[in-house]
Amino acid sequence: MYIREFQDMMRRIYFQRDSKRGIAGTFNWLVEEVEELGTALKDNGKKALEDEFADVLAWLASLANVANIDLDKAATSKYDGKCPKCRKTPCKCPFSKQE
Amino acid sequence: MYIREFQDMMRRIYFQRDSKRGIAGTFNWLVEEVEELGTALKDNGKKALEDEFADVLAWLASLANVANIDLDKAATSKYDGKCPKCRKTPCKCPFSKQE
Repeated sequence: MYIREFQDMMRRIYFQRDSKRGIAGTFNWLVEEVEELGTALKDNGKKALEDEFADVLAWLASLANVANIDLDKAATSKYDGKCPKCRKTPCKCPFSKQE
Repeated sequence: MYIREFQDMMRRIYFQRDSKRGIAGTFNWLVEEVEELGTALKDNGKKALEDEFADVLAWLASLANVANIDLDKAATSKYDGKCPKCRKTPCKCPFSKQE
């Protein structure tokens, strides 16, 4: 499915609720879903893990709807086939301290 | 762009680094990007906000690559045009305490 199509589907199903909840509340839900994904990565089976990935993407799309951001355009403008920093594929950026 | 195409692009650009970093380290980066998105939602302009949405999607796709999850399949299996809980469009689930 296209990223845009998925975001539009989230709008049809959830925009009424998302817009009432607003940006801050919807962001808080996204954070909660990311925490659940973190738990599922440690100890759940594949189906549960797939569900958590789906939920994070769904809440990210919901948040984009409330913030009036086109997720497809945003993603493909920044990531156009090469690393946006070093302009290489594969990425050749120096490793950061966190890695 | 298709969700799958975006995930494949992330694999071409970043899989070497992502696989070395592993699941836990890549998850930590996702969390960091979500925090940056939270900041951008409060006080940055539209371009900065688009970049942060792009980064969260990029790290989610990277994490899916490391965890061997097909993000497109996961998302469209759970969200098939109706709310997965109440099976309505728009969603008619009762509001939770957090909303």
